[in-house]
Amino acid sequence: MGKQKFYLDKLARTFQIRNLLIRQALAECLGTLILVMFGCGAVAQLVLSGGSHGMFLTVNFAFGFAATLGILVCGQVSGGHLNPAVTFALCLLGREKWKKFPVYFFFQTLGAFLGAGVIFGLYYDALWDFGRNAEGQYDLIVIGPNATAGIFATYPSKHLTIVNGFFDQLIGTAALIVCILAIVDPYNNPIPRGLEAFTVGFVVLVIGLSMGFNSGYAVNPARDLGPRLFTALAGWGVEVFTAKSYWFFVPIFAPFLGTVVGVIVYQLMVGFHVEGEVREREQKEEEGRMLSNVTSKDTA
Amino acid sequence: MGKQKFYLDKLARTFQIRNLLIRQALAECLGTLILVMFGCGAVAQLVLSGGSHGMFLTVNFAFGFAATLGILVCGQVSGGHLNPAVTFALCLLGREKWKKFPVYFFFQTLGAFLGAGVIFGLYYDALWDFGRNAEGQYDLIVIGPNATAGIFATYPSKHLTIVNGFFDQLIGTAALIVCILAIVDPYNNPIPRGLEAFTVGFVVLVIGLSMGFNSGYAVNPARDLGPRLFTALAGWGVEVFTAKSYWFFVPIFAPFLGTVVGVIVYQLMVGFHVEGEVREREQKEEEGRMLSNVTSKDTA
Amino acid sequence: MGKQKFYLDKLARTFQIRNLLIRQALAECLGTLILVMFGCGAVAQLVLSGGSHGMFLTVNFAFGFAATLGILVCGQVSGGHLNPAVTFALCLLGREKWKKFPVYFFFQTLGAFLGAGVIFGLYYDALWDFGRNAEGQYDLIVIGPNATAGIFATYPSKHLTIVNGFFDQLIGTAALIVCILAIVDPYNNPIPRGLEAFTVGFVVLVIGLSMGFNSGYAVNPARDLGPRLFTALAGWGVEVFTAKSYWFFVPIFAPFLGTVVGVIVYQLMVGFHVEGEVREREQKEEEGRMLSNVTSKDTA
Amino acid sequence: MGKQKFYLDKLARTFQIRNLLIRQALAECLGTLILVMFGCGAVAQLVLSGGSHGMFLTVNFAFGFAATLGILVCGQVSGGHLNPAVTFALCLLGREKWKKFPVYFFFQTLGAFLGAGVIFGLYYDALWDFGRNAEGQYDLIVIGPNATAGIFATYPSKHLTIVNGFFDQLIGTAALIVCILAIVDPYNNPIPRGLEAFTVGFVVLVIGLSMGFNSGYAVNPARDLGPRLFTALAGWGVEVFTAKSYWFFVPIFAPFLGTVVGVIVYQLMVGFHVEGEVREREQKEEEGRMLSNVTSKDTA
Repeated sequence: MGKQKFYLDKLARTFQIRNLLIRQALAECLGTLILVMFGCGAVAQLVLSGGSHGMFLTVNFAFGFAATLGILVCGQVSGGHLNPAVTFALCLLGREKWKKFPVYFFFQTLGAFLGAGVIFGLYYDALWDFGRNAEGQYDLIVIGPNATAGIFATYPSKHLTIVNGFFDQLIGTAALIVCILAIVDPYNNPIPRGLEAFTVGFVVLVIGLSMGFNSGYAVNPARDLGPRLFTALAGWGVEVFTAKSYWFFVPIFAPFLGTVVGVIVYQLMVGFHVEGEVREREQKEEEGRMLSNVTSKDTA
Repeated sequence: MGKQKFYLDKLARTFQIRNLLIRQALAECLGTLILVMFGCGAVAQLVLSGGSHGMFLTVNFAFGFAATLGILVCGQVSGGHLNPAVTFALCLLGREKWKKFPVYFFFQTLGAFLGAGVIFGLYYDALWDFGRNAEGQYDLIVIGPNATAGIFATYPSKHLTIVNGFFDQLIGTAALIVCILAIVDPYNNPIPRGLEAFTVGFVVLVIGLSMGFNSGYAVNPARDLGPRLFTALAGWGVEVFTAKSYWFFVPIFAPFLGTVVGVIVYQLMVGFHVEGEVREREQKEEEGRMLSNVTSKDTA
Repeated sequence: MGKQKFYLDKLARTFQIRNLLIRQALAECLGTLILVMFGCGAVAQLVLSGGSHGMFLTVNFAFGFAATLGILVCGQVSGGHLNPAVTFALCLLGREKWKKFPVYFFFQTLGAFLGAGVIFGLYYDALWDFGRNAEGQYDLIVIGPNATAGIFATYPSKHLTIVNGFFDQLIGTAALIVCILAIVDPYNNPIPRGLEAFTVGFVVLVIGLSMGFNSGYAVNPARDLGPRLFTALAGWGVEVFTAKSYWFFVPIFAPFLGTVVGVIVYQLMVGFHVEGEVREREQKEEEGRMLSNVTSKDTA
Repeated sequence: MGKQKFYLDKLARTFQIRNLLIRQALAECLGTLILVMFGCGAVAQLVLSGGSHGMFLTVNFAFGFAATLGILVCGQVSGGHLNPAVTFALCLLGREKWKKFPVYFFFQTLGAFLGAGVIFGLYYDALWDFGRNAEGQYDLIVIGPNATAGIFATYPSKHLTIVNGFFDQLIGTAALIVCILAIVDPYNNPIPRGLEAFTVGFVVLVIGLSMGFNSGYAVNPARDLGPRLFTALAGWGVEVFTAKSYWFFVPIFAPFLGTVVGVIVYQLMVGFHVEGEVREREQKEEEGRMLSNVTSKDTA
């Protein structure tokens, strides 16, 4: 074991990255990779098996628990946002520095891109087998009965207009942000330490159970953009961006507006008040201490 | 960051509400909004997708975990009742003041009303798409094959009489209250602190799994009345109140009777005894202390 | 509030039961009532809705989480066995007194009987609606296409012989007991305090997912006998005992044999060794203390 | 009770095994038995009931929570690997001694063999009933419409080539190992102590939800080889090894390669950095202490 320990130690020292932001960006990248790998993997399993190995509920479970696992893997290093909208919310509230936002956004999107790539490789045979058209030719199709682009990025249902779709993503993200802010609020503090990742997983699960029918609850610009880029490069072509009147804009921009709404709702209805209560308690204690100091000096 | 912190602080001080009861009422309102938004959202997803994006189990999961999230968001501020029946039970046992009951009831109903509104907006296109009748006309229907009122408020199954329906809501609420009292009983104390919200979520889930077939397990006057009011105003009309021989009375009144039954059953079979045990232990310790004081004085 | 507190206190003192065994028996009764009410309620929902409001998975969830809730309600008072087989296992290992066994068995069966009664009342209309035969007559049927007796007690599948059925209940209970012994073993201690109830719920869930096809995983004599007695009295008649060549014997006796097998397997493969390790560590410490006492006396 | 205690103590001392490695091997054996018994039991329930008592989701739940229970039963004694790939990963990182690897591999495979045997016995009648062919003859079939060998070991889907199958097992195991390393990393430490088993269960569940369509996510050489050996001996014959161009090689060897990939990915992206951070913090503290010692000596 002595020799192994020596080489392991040497490896650890060689590959250790000392820049904190790069380390955090790498961790975010791995976390989002895990989220998308498991989440889109479940969609792939549902679509490619024709429903025999999955249903919409299994996709909800997979995205929810994949969020949990992604946060567990990277949370201690990077905070486990996995979602530019979450990073944006924490920047808005002054809990993260703004310079983190573009870095996290890029690496979260990169992680989602790589996660989509892993699933593409894992289900390579099944994808080609599924995409066979009536003439026996194989293709990767964006829209239609044998479409497979929806495994990776989200596309709206037939009934959905762009306006309703924008509102859908806005509300979905606002709901996500309200719940996450409650979970991580240092003044509210509703759950035991260490269970944040599990609780966020439940939030993602519930959003999928109740807000997934319109357009597949992206509520995360990186989770949607990364895999969409991958499909554009991997053979589905530029149609993944142009389809459904440039739908891809919606899951990129609506979530940030939803974040603003979520932050405002949470702060106005709960956040400012619990914060204020703590502040006032601390002030009173401070005053109490000062007073007793004065008293003790007097008596001294 | 200096400037942002400054403005955030200013905002916090401006919007902070100092009246405790108003703060609690707002929190209850947000919590119940979350419960109904996610819960009714899951019913909407099941109904509007025609079963492709949901089933009764997903509705059960959504209501259960939505209760968990609602409690997490507001629990530290308001106790996280989300249900006038729960507030009523705690008032009956002298753990909350009676004046809280009407305030909480109103704001819980308001939250449920708003939650229904969010879901109405989120699935606006899908609702109109679903409500198309044979002549190609669109409508919002209360009862019948393309009915959508059942997404928001509960309506009884065909087999159910009013008497059985009353008993159904009574028993469902009694079961809820027995479990909640056990979870929050300060003398029983069966779970680690901070897991109450999760456990209540499981209670709601199990009630849905086993008592949901008769009339959709409202077991919560606010959760049923708020969305019913919303549908009356949003286009379904007054039929939401008159349908099924004024069914709407049942999920408002039966739960309170069920609360009384639940409180009595729990207290008689568990509550009074664990309370008594603690009281007697404390008395003995008290006597022991007094005795030892006497003794020590004697020996002194 | 002063008056309410006074009357509540008076009530508490009037109804408090001071005999520990009676208190424990009452708590066991309520816990098993909850287990059977939610569990059999889920079977009722599945059967009576013809599959629209349930599936076998929902029954598994309901029995699992109902076990969790039942244990939470009564665990602090009575230990939360809910199952004579569990009481038997703890008596075998000397962790409970043998005189508890018949008392618990009786009150667990009583609780299961009452739980079945609650579900009978809750689904009274649905039961009669479902039991309508071809001639439009109503009946409560034990065996056949519109049978409803299987909602309350277990009956074997067609493919099952009595010998295989006995082995099925034996193995199911042995698996239950091995897992429960690991969870509550004071020397093994694998989970944080307070999570035992949740973990036992998962055990019951998993047994239902994997061992439920043969005869519905009773693995609990009280859970089967109580509801069977209820159905015999409530209108299904004596056929509930005579059906399938007196099947009712199997879920009463096979679990106790399974308990013996489970206790032996766990103790031989894990229990005796972790116990022994702790014992030896304590002995060494004891010797260490004695030695140091001797030394310190010598040096003194 | 006195006598019972005496005999129990005597039994405990008689059967206590003092060799640590044998004790650990026995515990691993029981843990893997539980994993395979519940996991393959759920597959049996799904296949033999023709889908009425299960679906792919129930198999995912069963394997996930069975992993949790298996780890709970043996974790305190043996670490709860249940999978030679996990043992291999911990050996690679120098956290377990290499001599443990063959012992654990053997006993894990033995446990999986025995678990398959228990399920064979439990569903003996159902297996023969299901394997009836058109001529009314009974058989145990490896490949085809009434095949039952897939209950115990994994076989690839029709669309899968051996190369893609190898990649499937490699990626599945790498994903498992990345998550498990994050969960048990002493420097990362993302979850409260005692919840590791539950979290690993979620990992196994999510892998099944998203990577189960190709070949049934063995991701565990013992879980696949043990039951395959059992089926070869129990009547399915040598075809279980030769079927699908000797597929059985893939779930034995690919997982180990996947382990190497998983270890490298986790260590490069998270592990080395959190380890390095802790090391550097400790060095600084060490230096701080030495410096203050020097100072205090100087001042002394």
